[in-house]
Amino acid sequence: MASNDDKQKCSSLVHVHNPHLDNMKDDILYHFNLGTSSHNLPAMFGDVKFVCVGGSPWRMKAFIEYVAGVLGLEDPKSEYPNICAGTDRYAMYKIGPVLSVSHGMGIPSISIMLHELIKLLHHARCTDVVIIRIGTSGGIGLEAGTVVVTKQSVDSNFLPKFEQVILGRTVVRSTDLDQTLAEELLRCSEELNRFDTVIGNTMCTMDFYEGQARLDGAFCAYTEKDKQDYLAKASEAGVCNIEMESSVFAAMCKLSGVRAAVVCVTLLDRLKGDQLNVPHEVLNSYQQRPQILVSRFIQKQLSTSAKSLLH
Amino acid sequence: MASNDDKQKCSSLVHVHNPHLDNMKDDILYHFNLGTSSHNLPAMFGDVKFVCVGGSPWRMKAFIEYVAGVLGLEDPKSEYPNICAGTDRYAMYKIGPVLSVSHGMGIPSISIMLHELIKLLHHARCTDVVIIRIGTSGGIGLEAGTVVVTKQSVDSNFLPKFEQVILGRTVVRSTDLDQTLAEELLRCSEELNRFDTVIGNTMCTMDFYEGQARLDGAFCAYTEKDKQDYLAKASEAGVCNIEMESSVFAAMCKLSGVRAAVVCVTLLDRLKGDQLNVPHEVLNSYQQRPQILVSRFIQKQLSTSAKSLLH
Repeated sequence: MASNDDKQKCSSLVHVHNPHLDNMKDDILYHFNLGTSSHNLPAMFGDVKFVCVGGSPWRMKAFIEYVAGVLGLEDPKSEYPNICAGTDRYAMYKIGPVLSVSHGMGIPSISIMLHELIKLLHHARCTDVVIIRIGTSGGIGLEAGTVVVTKQSVDSNFLPKFEQVILGRTVVRSTDLDQTLAEELLRCSEELNRFDTVIGNTMCTMDFYEGQARLDGAFCAYTEKDKQDYLAKASEAGVCNIEMESSVFAAMCKLSGVRAAVVCVTLLDRLKGDQLNVPHEVLNSYQQRPQILVSRFIQKQLSTSAKSLLH
Repeated sequence: MASNDDKQKCSSLVHVHNPHLDNMKDDILYHFNLGTSSHNLPAMFGDVKFVCVGGSPWRMKAFIEYVAGVLGLEDPKSEYPNICAGTDRYAMYKIGPVLSVSHGMGIPSISIMLHELIKLLHHARCTDVVIIRIGTSGGIGLEAGTVVVTKQSVDSNFLPKFEQVILGRTVVRSTDLDQTLAEELLRCSEELNRFDTVIGNTMCTMDFYEGQARLDGAFCAYTEKDKQDYLAKASEAGVCNIEMESSVFAAMCKLSGVRAAVVCVTLLDRLKGDQLNVPHEVLNSYQQRPQILVSRFIQKQLSTSAKSLLH
C-alpha cells in the first residue's frame, strides 16, 4: 500500500494521459532536440519548480538573465546556454529551479511545445511545478503597458473553452486556470507597485488580423464600427486583452494537473488603434513587466519554502 | 482609359483587399520590423518574383545560400543578412529575384507572416510573383524522403476548405492551389531524377500530436487501430501527407491573386510510426529535397524569361 507521502508525491507530479508512452523504449522530444535515451532528463530537469513560457526566444533569454539576478543566481560569466541549441524550433534556458522556454506564435506552435514540455517534466519526475505564460497582448480599454493576469481564457465568442480536433472529431476542453495563483500574482504586483495590473478574461484567437478585428491586415471586409462593436461585446463579456495562446495553454496545463497562470502585458489599447507604432524601447520596457512580476512571485515562493524548511 | 499594358500589369500585382490601407499614412509590418515610412519597400523588394517560405529560420537561410549557388548569384563573402534582424519572430533573406522567409509552426504563425508579406509585396508593387511553401510533413504510405507537391489542401475531415473566424463568425475559404504550377514542379522533379516526387492531397491540422493521430503525445485516448483507421480514411480521400500550414497558405495566396504551391518532403511514413528517430543527417538531407526541386524550377523560369527577352 502506498504511504501518504507517496500519495502526496504522486498527486504533485506532472501527469501525462497516454498509456502508449509506457511501451516506448525511448521518447524523442523532437522539437526540443532532447530524448530519454540521449539525455538524463531527471538529472537535467528534476529540480524544476517554475516554468515560464513566452512567444519570443529573445524574450525568454532576457527573462532567465533577469530572474537569475533577482534570485541571486547569476552566472558570473553571464552565460546561459540554450538547452535546445540543436534545433531552431524552440529555445530553452534554466537557472536553478526556473525553466524558461519559447513557444512561437499561435495555438498550434505552443501546443507542440507543451506536449513535449509536459512529457519532459513527467520523465524528469518533477513535482509541484507551476507554469506561467508571460506574453504580450492587445488591451481593450486599458492604458498601454497594463499587465493582465488571466481569470478565464475565452474563445472568439467569449466562451471559456478550447476545441481540440482528434481523429477528425472536435473535443471541447475547459480553459480554467488556477484562481489562487492568479490572485497571488496580483498581490505580488500590488507589493511591487511599479505598474498597473488587473485580473480579467483573455480572448484567445487563431489570427492576429481578421481574428482580432484589426483594420490593418492584407484583407479586411468590415468597418471601424463593426470592429468597435465587436470589441465592445468582448469588453462586456469581461475580456481585458487579446492574445493567441492562452486557451490551449490553460487546457493542456489543466489536463496534466499543473497549476498555471497567464500574465500578459498590453502593448496598445485596441479601442484606439491597431498598429504597434510606439518606439521599440517603450515596447521593450512593457515586455519586461510580466518578467518583473513573475520573478517577484518566484522569489517570494522560494523564500517561503526556505523559511518552512528552517522551522 | 487604361491601356492593355496597364491592365495586364494590374492583374499581375499582388492584391490586398482592405480599403482601410489607403487611408494609412504609414504601414508598420510589425513582425518583420519593416514599414512603409522607415523603409523604401519598392527599392528593397520591387524585383521579387519568387517567394519561398518555410517553418524553420535555419532552413530558410540554407535555402537562400543554396538557390544563390544554383542561380550563380553567390555573394563572394557568403553573407546573406537577415532582413528582419531587428525581430526574432521571422527571418527573411533575399538574393536577386528570390525572397526566403520563415513562418514558424502552425496556421496562426504563418497567417501573421502572410498578412505582412502580402502587404509588403503590394507596397513594393511587385508583379508576377509566385509563392512556394517548402516544408516538412508526415507521409501516408510513402517512403520517407518522398516529396509531395500538394494538389489540394484539406482539413481534418478531408475537405478542401479553411475556416477563418472574423468578428466571432466563421467564414469558409477555398484552399485551391495553382494546378499548372504543381504540374510544372512535378516536371522539374522528373528532369532532376534525384528523388521520388508525387502530386497528392495534403491534410493540414491544428496540432502535431492528437490532431495527426500520433500515439506519442502527452495525451492520447485512442488506440493504434483508431489511428490506422483514421489514416486509412485520409489515404482513401487522396491524402499523401500531413502538415500544419498549407490550408491558410492556399487560402490567403488565392485571395491575393498570387500563384502558389506547397512542396513538402515526408520525414517518415506515419503508417509505420510516429517518432522522428532517424539520424539528423538523414532528416537534413530529406529537408534539402524541396529546396533542390524549387531551385531547379526558379532556374528554369528565369532561363525561359531570359530567352524570351532575347527574341
